[in-house]
Amino acid sequence: MDRKVFGVDIGGTTVKMGMFTSDGELVDKWEIKTRTEDNGKNILPDIAGSIKERMEKDGLSNEDVAGIGLSVPGPVDDNGIVHKCVNLGWGVFDIDEEMRKYIDLPVFAGNDANAAALGEVWKGGGKGCSNVVVVTLGTGVGGGIIVNGKILSGYSGAGGEIGHIHIDDDETEKCGCGNTGCLEQYASATGIARLAVKRLEKDDKPSSIRGVSSMNAKVVFDAVKAGDALAIEVAEQFGEILGKGLSIIADVTNPEMFVIGGGVSKAGQIVIDFIQKNYVKYVFHGSRDTKFALATLGNDAGIYGSAKLVLDGVKA
Amino acid sequence: MDRKVFGVDIGGTTVKMGMFTSDGELVDKWEIKTRTEDNGKNILPDIAGSIKERMEKDGLSNEDVAGIGLSVPGPVDDNGIVHKCVNLGWGVFDIDEEMRKYIDLPVFAGNDANAAALGEVWKGGGKGCSNVVVVTLGTGVGGGIIVNGKILSGYSGAGGEIGHIHIDDDETEKCGCGNTGCLEQYASATGIARLAVKRLEKDDKPSSIRGVSSMNAKVVFDAVKAGDALAIEVAEQFGEILGKGLSIIADVTNPEMFVIGGGVSKAGQIVIDFIQKNYVKYVFHGSRDTKFALATLGNDAGIYGSAKLVLDGVKA
Repeated sequence: MDRKVFGVDIGGTTVKMGMFTSDGELVDKWEIKTRTEDNGKNILPDIAGSIKERMEKDGLSNEDVAGIGLSVPGPVDDNGIVHKCVNLGWGVFDIDEEMRKYIDLPVFAGNDANAAALGEVWKGGGKGCSNVVVVTLGTGVGGGIIVNGKILSGYSGAGGEIGHIHIDDDETEKCGCGNTGCLEQYASATGIARLAVKRLEKDDKPSSIRGVSSMNAKVVFDAVKAGDALAIEVAEQFGEILGKGLSIIADVTNPEMFVIGGGVSKAGQIVIDFIQKNYVKYVFHGSRDTKFALATLGNDAGIYGSAKLVLDGVKA
Repeated sequence: MDRKVFGVDIGGTTVKMGMFTSDGELVDKWEIKTRTEDNGKNILPDIAGSIKERMEKDGLSNEDVAGIGLSVPGPVDDNGIVHKCVNLGWGVFDIDEEMRKYIDLPVFAGNDANAAALGEVWKGGGKGCSNVVVVTLGTGVGGGIIVNGKILSGYSGAGGEIGHIHIDDDETEKCGCGNTGCLEQYASATGIARLAVKRLEKDDKPSSIRGVSSMNAKVVFDAVKAGDALAIEVAEQFGEILGKGLSIIADVTNPEMFVIGGGVSKAGQIVIDFIQKNYVKYVFHGSRDTKFALATLGNDAGIYGSAKLVLDGVKA
């Protein structure tokens, strides 16, 4: 099969788009705006229009294209039913059926965190492994569980919602989901900044991160690398909580590897070091040797994974 | 295919054996002793001998049998490699290769908790569902994760080891696995008895379970049904911890249903009630509607699941 594949990653502000060969080589990538007004009714027609334009540019007909993969910021079940995307204004609908109104190509859709995970396992940090948990440490904590090379999307598309596993009984602040003590309250970029601010308020211990105007995970990990004792305390707390969380995930799914991505992972191997030393303390011995690696595809993971959804779907 | 299938559940003291039709009807079941001496070297020949005997009785040749399913009390990976069974004295070996020395039939092996889960999903409490987590509350807490009808055995066969997810930072007593604060220290039959004893020691609150000579989960739940306030406290604590644990498992795997089995589940629906009301407090909203059911196959779950391993394996 030497047909082209389109991988599309729909975000709240931009839609990332990629054209791939069937071997997974990225031929071209570009972005369009996500028009979320009117309950996001323009998003799919906009994507279809942009793909048609790109096809015309290369003189491609529908027969030259295997399909379109769509990564969606919300739950999508295995039948391609989208179960609400709050950020896009979308309700519950069959995304293949809807997309076919605008372009006559097969559509394969998945949740964005899951698609990104599939991308990382296909061409990124988890390459060569079939059982991988991809953990995205961004504004929240996203997860993608890959079992025997396939996304574990679960019964209603809510598989891999690891940012909301309950990890701390003593938390009093609420998570965005309405619960308290969710993993992402401590392990996301936002969560690390929150831990740092709380630690600074606790006493007067001197620290290079004291008084920074905008606290964030990069500030904390830069200070850790410079040997700042208070920042190291914060990183230890982050590693303790995330290591414990990942140990539980491994007790359930026993992956070969964890791939750590998202903005926080840009600090590099040091992030893994803080997680892994705590992980081994808590995990059942059968999963103690699980490997850890950094994600490598960055913001392109979603378009790669969406393209892979098409290739897997066409093959199946 | 109207060939017969043998389902074999290897335990530490007895081996349960069943002969099934290919539709999953149990034709006959029996048990033999598990001879664990000499590193369990007699176990597989004993099983092969017993199957041959049963085949002779019905005049069955090898062509009349689709295969043998073996449920093993330890991790088994997807390639049929057993990774140590401490209770049997077994090390690491290829169980199909070993079994073929004694009987020339295809062998399909799986971990016992996983096989029992497959049985419950095929013919028991989870019938009709494809995404199920089976939770066995016995001496320990066992788990079997079924995703799209298949066992999630993980990279090295340690998938579904949910008894050892870390659930309590404040625990000081050690679990059998060497860690502290594992789920099974609270939610197994042994764990419930431990919670009851600790609660009784705390103060002098009157209770019908005070002074019973041998504390166990049945005593506790019988007292709960009779309205004993202290026993209800213990059940609440059990439900709180197990509900929290299952919420985390659902955040990871998003099953359609939890099936609750093992000795503790014999107390009936009341066990589910204590778990479920706590589960919904902690779980991410995408998994809030997950159903709960009691296991129905009891001690036969393992032989059913082992037979299903054969039918799935032959079909694949």
